[in-house]
Amino acid sequence: MFQDFETTADPSKGPARLAALRAEMAREDLAGFIVPRADAHQGEYVADADKRLAWLTGFSGSAGFCIALAEEAGVFVDGRYRNQVRGQVDLDAFTPVNWPETQPGAWLAERLERGARIGFDAWLHTAGEIEKIEAALDGTGIELVTTDNLVDRIWSDQPVPPGGDMRAHPIDFAGVSHADKRADLARTLRAAGSRAAVLTLSDSIAWLLNIRGNDIPHIPIVQGFAILHDDARVDFYTHPGRSAGIGTHFGPEVSLYPEVRFDAGLVELDGPVRVDKANAPLAVSRMLAAAGIEVAWGDDPCILPKARKNPAELDGARRAHLRDAAAVVEFLTWYDATAHAGTLTEVDLVVELESQRRASGALRDISFETISGSGPNGAIMHYRVSRESNRTLGRGEIVVLDSGGQYDDGTTDITRTLPVGPVGPEEKTCFTRVLQGMIAISRARFPKGLAGRDLDPLARYPLWLAHLDFNHGTGHGVGSYLSVHEGPQRLSRLGEVALDPGMILSNEPGYYRDGAFGIRIENLIAVTPAVRPEGGDDREMLAFETLTFVPIDRRLVVTEMLSTGERDWLNAYHAEARAKVGPLVSDAARAWLEKACAPI
Amino acid sequence: MFQDFETTADPSKGPARLAALRAEMAREDLAGFIVPRADAHQGEYVADADKRLAWLTGFSGSAGFCIALAEEAGVFVDGRYRNQVRGQVDLDAFTPVNWPETQPGAWLAERLERGARIGFDAWLHTAGEIEKIEAALDGTGIELVTTDNLVDRIWSDQPVPPGGDMRAHPIDFAGVSHADKRADLARTLRAAGSRAAVLTLSDSIAWLLNIRGNDIPHIPIVQGFAILHDDARVDFYTHPGRSAGIGTHFGPEVSLYPEVRFDAGLVELDGPVRVDKANAPLAVSRMLAAAGIEVAWGDDPCILPKARKNPAELDGARRAHLRDAAAVVEFLTWYDATAHAGTLTEVDLVVELESQRRASGALRDISFETISGSGPNGAIMHYRVSRESNRTLGRGEIVVLDSGGQYDDGTTDITRTLPVGPVGPEEKTCFTRVLQGMIAISRARFPKGLAGRDLDPLARYPLWLAHLDFNHGTGHGVGSYLSVHEGPQRLSRLGEVALDPGMILSNEPGYYRDGAFGIRIENLIAVTPAVRPEGGDDREMLAFETLTFVPIDRRLVVTEMLSTGERDWLNAYHAEARAKVGPLVSDAARAWLEKACAPI
Repeated sequence: MFQDFETTADPSKGPARLAALRAEMAREDLAGFIVPRADAHQGEYVADADKRLAWLTGFSGSAGFCIALAEEAGVFVDGRYRNQVRGQVDLDAFTPVNWPETQPGAWLAERLERGARIGFDAWLHTAGEIEKIEAALDGTGIELVTTDNLVDRIWSDQPVPPGGDMRAHPIDFAGVSHADKRADLARTLRAAGSRAAVLTLSDSIAWLLNIRGNDIPHIPIVQGFAILHDDARVDFYTHPGRSAGIGTHFGPEVSLYPEVRFDAGLVELDGPVRVDKANAPLAVSRMLAAAGIEVAWGDDPCILPKARKNPAELDGARRAHLRDAAAVVEFLTWYDATAHAGTLTEVDLVVELESQRRASGALRDISFETISGSGPNGAIMHYRVSRESNRTLGRGEIVVLDSGGQYDDGTTDITRTLPVGPVGPEEKTCFTRVLQGMIAISRARFPKGLAGRDLDPLARYPLWLAHLDFNHGTGHGVGSYLSVHEGPQRLSRLGEVALDPGMILSNEPGYYRDGAFGIRIENLIAVTPAVRPEGGDDREMLAFETLTFVPIDRRLVVTEMLSTGERDWLNAYHAEARAKVGPLVSDAARAWLEKACAPI
Repeated sequence: MFQDFETTADPSKGPARLAALRAEMAREDLAGFIVPRADAHQGEYVADADKRLAWLTGFSGSAGFCIALAEEAGVFVDGRYRNQVRGQVDLDAFTPVNWPETQPGAWLAERLERGARIGFDAWLHTAGEIEKIEAALDGTGIELVTTDNLVDRIWSDQPVPPGGDMRAHPIDFAGVSHADKRADLARTLRAAGSRAAVLTLSDSIAWLLNIRGNDIPHIPIVQGFAILHDDARVDFYTHPGRSAGIGTHFGPEVSLYPEVRFDAGLVELDGPVRVDKANAPLAVSRMLAAAGIEVAWGDDPCILPKARKNPAELDGARRAHLRDAAAVVEFLTWYDATAHAGTLTEVDLVVELESQRRASGALRDISFETISGSGPNGAIMHYRVSRESNRTLGRGEIVVLDSGGQYDDGTTDITRTLPVGPVGPEEKTCFTRVLQGMIAISRARFPKGLAGRDLDPLARYPLWLAHLDFNHGTGHGVGSYLSVHEGPQRLSRLGEVALDPGMILSNEPGYYRDGAFGIRIENLIAVTPAVRPEGGDDREMLAFETLTFVPIDRRLVVTEMLSTGERDWLNAYHAEARAKVGPLVSDAARAWLEKACAPI
């Protein structure tokens, strides 16, 4: 199993570790020290060696930070983790803080006097992040100072950083060679007048060099830093000796160096050097500036081309999604054939689903830990089932099942909501409204130039009409055998980047009733040029190609609520799912598919 | 008639006037001079005395500017006026420039050498506008310098500025006394640490002081400048002797001064003084700065409270809209009873419609010049019918009729699209899609905090599905017996201000097929708190109250295209129109209304 169900939090060790940290703070004459969840690569998952926040506080969420002061230690967490943090930290030692409502600068300014110095590790914070805190502290006399990482000093059994083999990502899947990608980005740099760009995001480097690895769970990246020169050469700084299996993949224009030489590589550069303020560690720009090298702030140049999938990547995504759909259909066949109400648990669903994906023989990893939330657990948007929280499915409930697979040819992410026996009208009505929003996005055609923000309301409108809504974005970008959450595109009020052909997004409206039930329906979709129909305007428009083909449970649909267009879409979708996935599944699953895809 | 149909453009006089302007430029050692369409109050309409751009160039559009250089004179106009400008200016003397694609700074930098000086009148440009041009000229050595208005020097028969009587806007319509408004805004200023605010927008002053006038067409304002002090006193600088009819309306806390004393009033202030960079003439902030008075940039404090209509204003709007609807229904009755195809012209419709509004006895003015576009003229979004452009309605065509009235209790704005005899399926299909978008906004319910940008896509989605769209916003804010275009709220990609209860907006999606036909359907709507229905979330949501009640032509609706919800909305709307407007119209119109409002 890629997934486990252990409860990792251990609040008991926090107080002693906090005391040890405070001793180090006193030694450095610091009034405080910031311990972020992030590592130097600002990714969604971190290696065990980088789990400083969890080690210190017990809090294991995917975002947040702790600011330890002499008398108080604030653990800043967002809305997803307000409940979780209270179960994971010792509340006598740590104080949960509602973030981003409370900002670190304001929190510090309220608690400290002029002259106070707050330490932080310049490798674990971006320039933009520190700039924002410093702006809030302007005039307070409180100072942020870079220091050693004080947690690393006291963490005696800190794990070693990842150092496993890397492997080449074949051109059949990548679509473009790393030489061509490097040449293309080098042209971008020259056009912008920059001599080099510093790359610190692991998925940017994996994309650019067409490599994959196993440094962290669920995202097949290789940790390291890279410098892209304006002549298309790349210096890649990573843990030594891990390129054994990669043969001649890199060629003479890509040089490997041990990570410890990165600092030296930086200060030898000619400026201007592009650095991404939103992603690069502050240490990078500080070091360049100290060496008198001009920093040109600008986006990591890999981000946009990585987001716009090329034809080979889109073909791979289609294949990966059909393979994944076949596994999910086998799972659904098993689910309907098994006496589930009062018998199966949330964990049982996760185990069966992962085993069906493994049976394909192509599963590299799961894309993220499967969310399996029945009844009231379904209303917890980022629910992680553990042995302790595990529930037996109850008759009349619904279950949200959000999961995905990592395959060489693509990353999948799918959510289906399933009935546990006969379900009441309230759940069905809400499910149908969620489905209407999901269909609105699937069918959308829209002028080129619009961003995700401009489409997000379409997914909510059917819910809004009934005074309902959901508190998350409608969709996120998805990588190509990379991160399941990939920017810059997103279907959300925060999505300000124009959608471009090739971008893959999730389409996952939901509805959550606290203490009662949760609903989410999710397909992945790819942005594609819209073909102008007879009578259409002479204007460039885009549309979405659906990638995910798994039946949507018709038992939860109130047919009369659907418009003709919505019903036509659903029937066409099911017909396509039957045609595409039918040939890939067992006889039993094919029979199940036939019924699940019948027109309504 | 408030409307005329004359062609005001006279391209023949431009060259001589341009030569005279160039002589003045030479005398001042200027390489160029900027002549904007705007006056010092940045309103939509300007008085005859301020029509400098039209006088110089012949161009009569509602936005744009001319930059006269020694050898070239660019007339900068936006997309609405690309064709019109070519008919109105002498193209041997003036060069149309596509604005905002071409920005004045870049245009100047391409044409002039270091050391060149460009003159402008600091009363006719905002600080923000000049700041933007200066930023573009940074490093070019080209300088913007404030000068006398050189057009005024050579315009020997320049009309006198408006100076007619002002009148009090009764509290029954205004809802809040000017004393309470002043006290409220003074608190805002004190909370922000400002000692005073400079008000230069005419509708802000009219709103704050509860006054109305006739200085310019269609917007009942009184031109002048005002200073609001943090103790709630107001100094109002305007043309002398025009408050004769206003009696004791102002009281001791509002002082009137001649406009020529405004400069002196400004430099006597204690700072900080709030000035709106987007609206106030640059002359204001320059004068304050020169006198050593601190300028606090900030929004004109009247804008938001003016936009959020109070209960009396909303009641007034409801009354004004029913009165206006009765007039429009009489017009529509006349239209259907008259042999129109091949007989009536666009002008005939305008004349009849205005006369029906006048018959109410309450019409103060029309809100803007009625747009009456038949057949291909309907596709010209801002079409103004003149004796020359006037067309006879042709059988099988459709006509767009966009009009409004100014009444003491409210400002109306309504568009209906009418068939001229039997209409083809293409027009009907497009009309139905426009109607679906208009209904989507009318029915919308949405979380508090959203802006117009977040709702605009809902009005376009039914068109998008057929690869269609329209090139204007879905709606604009509307004043209360003030400007028919009032910010800051709008339903548009540019609408970033959160919608608040009381705000009035137009809801007017359209569709335009060049050379063929135009469609627009427009109601006014007011933002209102949404009542939580049984089963709704415990979250604050807003909705729209419809203000306009005039039947939408059922002969243009393809019923089968509507969803159940859309059809229900249309039938309920028509039932309400019949119930509300029926008692206000003639017997003939009541009979017409009965048929026009029958359910579909």
